[in-house]
Amino acid sequence: MLNTNEYFDGNVKSIGFEAEGARSSVGVMLPGSYTFATAAPERMTVVKGAISVKLPGHVDWETYNAGDDFEVPGDASFDVKIAETTAYLCDYL
Amino acid sequence: MLNTNEYFDGNVKSIGFEAEGARSSVGVMLPGSYTFATAAPERMTVVKGAISVKLPGHVDWETYNAGDDFEVPGDASFDVKIAETTAYLCDYL
Repeated sequence: MLNTNEYFDGNVKSIGFEAEGARSSVGVMLPGSYTFATAAPERMTVVKGAISVKLPGHVDWETYNAGDDFEVPGDASFDVKIAETTAYLCDYL
Repeated sequence: MLNTNEYFDGNVKSIGFEAEGARSSVGVMLPGSYTFATAAPERMTVVKGAISVKLPGHVDWETYNAGDDFEVPGDASFDVKIAETTAYLCDYL
């Protein structure tokens, strides 16, 4: 089963799937600023474009480009800035 | 604008977007065999999982894993076999 979801008035869309016994999603973010909440811990990998992120408990923003990944703890929220439309893979850990 | 599409009775879903002045999509394929038709030439990159493909004019199947890519000419069709649910990036060239 493939589940399509949209967030932030359709500025972020994703397709959820199961692979290798775990849940993942691929998605696209239009330029903007977003705050995401996590339930489970997750690993975000930039597929195309770039994600600037301020991780929970961090003061500074860091920018990740295509091929880079970062992990976010569960039960947390994190801030994201997108300068150009960006595709990502999210693996729930 | 993010355009969600589905193909093959919802066994393949994708999100189309524009980035860096060109069109791309990310999508997910459930296990199965599919034949895709291209209008423009495109480059497919495996994001997670694996794609076995028989390219136009080829006799043999080749398998591409996460991080691998292959190009397909325009106005062509190609056959794909998916053994495990697979996420991909498609860049229209």
